[in-house]
Amino acid sequence: MSSIINGKNIKISIFGQSHSEAIGCVIDGLPAGIAIDMDNVREFMQRRAPGKNEFSTQRSEDDEVEILSGIADGVTCGAPLCGIIKNKNQHSKDYSSLKFTPRPSHADLGNFVKTNGANDIRGGGHSSGRLTAPLCFAGAIAMQILNTYGVNVYAHIYSLAGINDTAFDPLKLEYQGIDKAKFPVIDQQIGEQMQSAILQARDMGDSVGGIIECGITGVPCGVGDPIFDGVENKLSANIFGIPAVKGIEFGAGFDLANMMGSTANDEFSYDENGTPITLSNNNGGILGGITTGMPIIFRVVIKPTPSIYKEQQTINLKDGTNTTLLISGRHDPCIVQRAVPVVEAVSAITMLDFIL
Amino acid sequence: MSSIINGKNIKISIFGQSHSEAIGCVIDGLPAGIAIDMDNVREFMQRRAPGKNEFSTQRSEDDEVEILSGIADGVTCGAPLCGIIKNKNQHSKDYSSLKFTPRPSHADLGNFVKTNGANDIRGGGHSSGRLTAPLCFAGAIAMQILNTYGVNVYAHIYSLAGINDTAFDPLKLEYQGIDKAKFPVIDQQIGEQMQSAILQARDMGDSVGGIIECGITGVPCGVGDPIFDGVENKLSANIFGIPAVKGIEFGAGFDLANMMGSTANDEFSYDENGTPITLSNNNGGILGGITTGMPIIFRVVIKPTPSIYKEQQTINLKDGTNTTLLISGRHDPCIVQRAVPVVEAVSAITMLDFIL
Amino acid sequence: MSSIINGKNIKISIFGQSHSEAIGCVIDGLPAGIAIDMDNVREFMQRRAPGKNEFSTQRSEDDEVEILSGIADGVTCGAPLCGIIKNKNQHSKDYSSLKFTPRPSHADLGNFVKTNGANDIRGGGHSSGRLTAPLCFAGAIAMQILNTYGVNVYAHIYSLAGINDTAFDPLKLEYQGIDKAKFPVIDQQIGEQMQSAILQARDMGDSVGGIIECGITGVPCGVGDPIFDGVENKLSANIFGIPAVKGIEFGAGFDLANMMGSTANDEFSYDENGTPITLSNNNGGILGGITTGMPIIFRVVIKPTPSIYKEQQTINLKDGTNTTLLISGRHDPCIVQRAVPVVEAVSAITMLDFIL
Amino acid sequence: MSSIINGKNIKISIFGQSHSEAIGCVIDGLPAGIAIDMDNVREFMQRRAPGKNEFSTQRSEDDEVEILSGIADGVTCGAPLCGIIKNKNQHSKDYSSLKFTPRPSHADLGNFVKTNGANDIRGGGHSSGRLTAPLCFAGAIAMQILNTYGVNVYAHIYSLAGINDTAFDPLKLEYQGIDKAKFPVIDQQIGEQMQSAILQARDMGDSVGGIIECGITGVPCGVGDPIFDGVENKLSANIFGIPAVKGIEFGAGFDLANMMGSTANDEFSYDENGTPITLSNNNGGILGGITTGMPIIFRVVIKPTPSIYKEQQTINLKDGTNTTLLISGRHDPCIVQRAVPVVEAVSAITMLDFIL
Repeated sequence: MSSIINGKNIKISIFGQSHSEAIGCVIDGLPAGIAIDMDNVREFMQRRAPGKNEFSTQRSEDDEVEILSGIADGVTCGAPLCGIIKNKNQHSKDYSSLKFTPRPSHADLGNFVKTNGANDIRGGGHSSGRLTAPLCFAGAIAMQILNTYGVNVYAHIYSLAGINDTAFDPLKLEYQGIDKAKFPVIDQQIGEQMQSAILQARDMGDSVGGIIECGITGVPCGVGDPIFDGVENKLSANIFGIPAVKGIEFGAGFDLANMMGSTANDEFSYDENGTPITLSNNNGGILGGITTGMPIIFRVVIKPTPSIYKEQQTINLKDGTNTTLLISGRHDPCIVQRAVPVVEAVSAITMLDFIL
Repeated sequence: MSSIINGKNIKISIFGQSHSEAIGCVIDGLPAGIAIDMDNVREFMQRRAPGKNEFSTQRSEDDEVEILSGIADGVTCGAPLCGIIKNKNQHSKDYSSLKFTPRPSHADLGNFVKTNGANDIRGGGHSSGRLTAPLCFAGAIAMQILNTYGVNVYAHIYSLAGINDTAFDPLKLEYQGIDKAKFPVIDQQIGEQMQSAILQARDMGDSVGGIIECGITGVPCGVGDPIFDGVENKLSANIFGIPAVKGIEFGAGFDLANMMGSTANDEFSYDENGTPITLSNNNGGILGGITTGMPIIFRVVIKPTPSIYKEQQTINLKDGTNTTLLISGRHDPCIVQRAVPVVEAVSAITMLDFIL
Repeated sequence: MSSIINGKNIKISIFGQSHSEAIGCVIDGLPAGIAIDMDNVREFMQRRAPGKNEFSTQRSEDDEVEILSGIADGVTCGAPLCGIIKNKNQHSKDYSSLKFTPRPSHADLGNFVKTNGANDIRGGGHSSGRLTAPLCFAGAIAMQILNTYGVNVYAHIYSLAGINDTAFDPLKLEYQGIDKAKFPVIDQQIGEQMQSAILQARDMGDSVGGIIECGITGVPCGVGDPIFDGVENKLSANIFGIPAVKGIEFGAGFDLANMMGSTANDEFSYDENGTPITLSNNNGGILGGITTGMPIIFRVVIKPTPSIYKEQQTINLKDGTNTTLLISGRHDPCIVQRAVPVVEAVSAITMLDFIL
Repeated sequence: MSSIINGKNIKISIFGQSHSEAIGCVIDGLPAGIAIDMDNVREFMQRRAPGKNEFSTQRSEDDEVEILSGIADGVTCGAPLCGIIKNKNQHSKDYSSLKFTPRPSHADLGNFVKTNGANDIRGGGHSSGRLTAPLCFAGAIAMQILNTYGVNVYAHIYSLAGINDTAFDPLKLEYQGIDKAKFPVIDQQIGEQMQSAILQARDMGDSVGGIIECGITGVPCGVGDPIFDGVENKLSANIFGIPAVKGIEFGAGFDLANMMGSTANDEFSYDENGTPITLSNNNGGILGGITTGMPIIFRVVIKPTPSIYKEQQTINLKDGTNTTLLISGRHDPCIVQRAVPVVEAVSAITMLDFIL
């Protein structure tokens, strides 16, 4: 098992289980001499944190990060930065019955088999979505450094329960009215419809999924390498580290299957400043793994929360029989909105590694 | 630049440019004592090779691999295996004019900027689709070893120019009538429609794209690790190493955005042999990065061939003006059918690394 | 900066500075289901801990490790194991004057230049010998697991201030009377002479160095790979991670320069059990990077503690002048005896990665 | 098995066996736009090549490298550079009898066990010293690029058969009269004594070893990282990739065990140009893994050639009996002089990775 982003410059080791003493991460390779704005980090992490509204779990962790190392005199000192979040509000008793009855569409069965039953089942253990908290911590720091290079990362809910937000303009991506703090959509009215759909799912004891669109601006042309070290390779490898992600597409993505080359191709031109641009951006800012200088655009599908309040078929690993399961405890009817900052965080970490 | 698959066990270094002396790869980490069936390797590579029919480029490379090392007494000897393919049929003169006029939707501009103009532009250089030949060589060898573990990899054209083949049955994937050697579809009639669409695009000087579906059977439950070293992370990272891939989705993929948890969830059951199975397979055989024992299913979108026979806008990097470009030379109106074995090859390499 | 042992199976990320909130490590890749004997870990770590006797610094850290993750129900759960040690007894004021006057033979100047002055100078920051505490924590755990494979690691002070202990018998290495807990030598009388030499150096405000000999038994023949992934490559790369190490030699080491092949060669024979052995072990159990099944023997030189109580010449990085420096604070006149468990720890970590 | 230098920027995959079709390497990560001086490469490689004089094997390979990829228009194009050397002069029949009778102090037994007997025994297979030819090829290229950064690497025979050359001046290392092309020593008279010792060993059917001293100049202060990514870690890991190396020491090395801190410490001063220097260089230009700006100095011990013309005891792996072996064929009575450019090559590769 290796819960490590092993970048060329930035290496991040994520640790912790949903109900361990603490969760956290070690970030290795940050440039020295950077003052980290911890208020900004806290704000960023709050967007992911649970218990903030009616759509998300009532587990009220405050997700306050303690920095154990890597800072001296208020700036990064070049040594690995370790931040931890204590787990305070664990209800371990809720989970004990799940040891031998894997929850459908969770990683329980695989973890049980891998570890011969030694896995930490409480709250999903190391496979829990809670591990995205240290990811957001690392991402918030990466974002601050990226910003100093003129690189920005924006994500919004592109689609939720079949309801579609306005898409980003792939030619001129702007931070157009996304109220990141509340419900990250471009069109607020669409956002309200989405929220109704979530509430409806919640009332049915069910859940919904969606698609997150992410745009990255300010990355110059020429970043990334051909074949296996391209921007798409690295972004996808890391984005699949977010629980519930089941697909990723860049630019026009799967729609390219229905386009002809003459329509799909992004023709080149110089803009008024003499900078090469493309007249369309069906490739999402990346050609052959290498950035073109246009906005990087990709979309990520998040499956419906697998924890639902309906009886489901499962198996009993102890006695080898079929059985049923009714999940109790606190669960979000939708995690898409909370996954938006996580997608931003992972994107920021990945791009920082390329930019340094 | 690093054209390396850096697996835990298997490491593959790809080298060569479209018009260099040779292309090839070094495969490090193969188990010793394996007899490689070179006829089978040749057959596999022929599926990718150009010049085989009216849909693919007339460049008639024979793509014969010379093995330079790694074999002794007819079996792998534990030392790195290097195979090379000589480039014989280069028409370098066709490409010289492209040095300063990047072809739309190719990697030319990015490579020019990265290398300050020192990149090998002939035939796309190192970013050429020709580099998938050594990938197929490595994949054919990986496949032979994987097969001894009971693992099989099948891919077919799922969609081409908007025409859809029958999908794999995600519960009981079988090698159902895919004539891999000719045109890899399940429904031959659909295949004929696809071929017509390719010919039509060719006659228009245009190109078409498509979607490849890949299924992997025989992988036991418990393979892969949480968070960053899951099967999805590694497959996607490597699959994006195939030129023209712009998206990947596992299981129900992007359709999960419109499903509710109660429909999306894959409930567990024991089959008649007491093996855990899922009653649906919307997660494509992977939960939390770890295999479930069900078939692994994913789909990959291939954009339309960017080389088309139509005048396109581009820029002149020498004098900073806008200009137009008419690509000549030999180009496929569709590369989807040739990409099918490449997807299989990359999948085999990736899974072998997990299985060893 | 990357303070990571990036093994094939075991990956360890070390973090912390001498005076940061805490120091610690994340161990990724431990097998699941292992009960860690924490008393044994504590005992192992005590051998390195300071303040134990008259030869070592009076800083009385208790070096108690808090395990934050990776354990569930008392056994390793397959998730990364994070252990931290709080820094309690920092006297930061002692170090403030050193920011611009690098201590001779310490890493201060290099760290200053690397970080443009942002490095944490307090107690040597991340380059402090204190970081060997988490290394010993990781090593103690690795050792427990290694022992279950029949592998043992023994080290002793081979030489100190020119006084030599009995060497290990390279053919039949045994844990011969090394009282690890006190002063790890084979010949206790020699040990007393060494201790006198340390006290004498202390009284002179000076310091002494030495050589540690390490033996590893129970590793079967065939472990390690040719060229760059051999046992010598990995052991040396990791051993140089211990502060003050300036050299490593395997088997007869530098003495081989004066031997003839006919004397140096280790001839083969079968022992009474039909196991291949060598009749001498001048290669220290490793040939061409691969183990022979004989004891692995290597020696490591530890330079004299660079912190001495004598005025030394140095430079003032602020104003560019030459100056002098008199180091105050608490420093060991000899660190060789405390480095013995660190050498064992790093050896155990390295070999566990090979054995898994 | 993984015969790869996996640097941060430079990755080199070595392939081939002593008697395979070819040997070679892929160098990934070279900067683009560099014109490689192939005459200089050839000259460098000749220093290692066999058959040049009475001290080295009569196998007269010309070691001519064919470059298969990575060069376009005469300069590096940013794509991986593959160079191969055809094996022409193999006498495979000489080696067939060795399959089951491992040669003392060679890697035969370990390779046999690792591969279950599938290893290529001819000429030592992948463990052969012949694999240092592609290493020298890669090193010669690295050296040319390093030189443009003002970094130089010099090595000489420091000791051979107990006869010692003048040591480098660690404070002001210069290329003082080392005739690299012939017999690389500083003191030519000492060199003649060494040559006599080699001839004497040859006449006795025996062999001798020695120590190589290597100096690297021009590396600025601040290169390398604390703990595991220091210059000593990386140099030692790669240097142990050279066959027959059994130890490495930096600066005063093992002599530090007998020194007191007050003598061993390298005090700082500014030189006339305001550059920090040390007044002694017992640390060999590296403190805590990081360069000081002083010359990097290290020494490497090379064991006597294990192939000697005397009957030796060994085992028969086929029938499990003890037996004897008389090695025939062509073997150097000393490989130290040929290993000098190999040490330089590996040093250049390692330092280039740090410098880029």
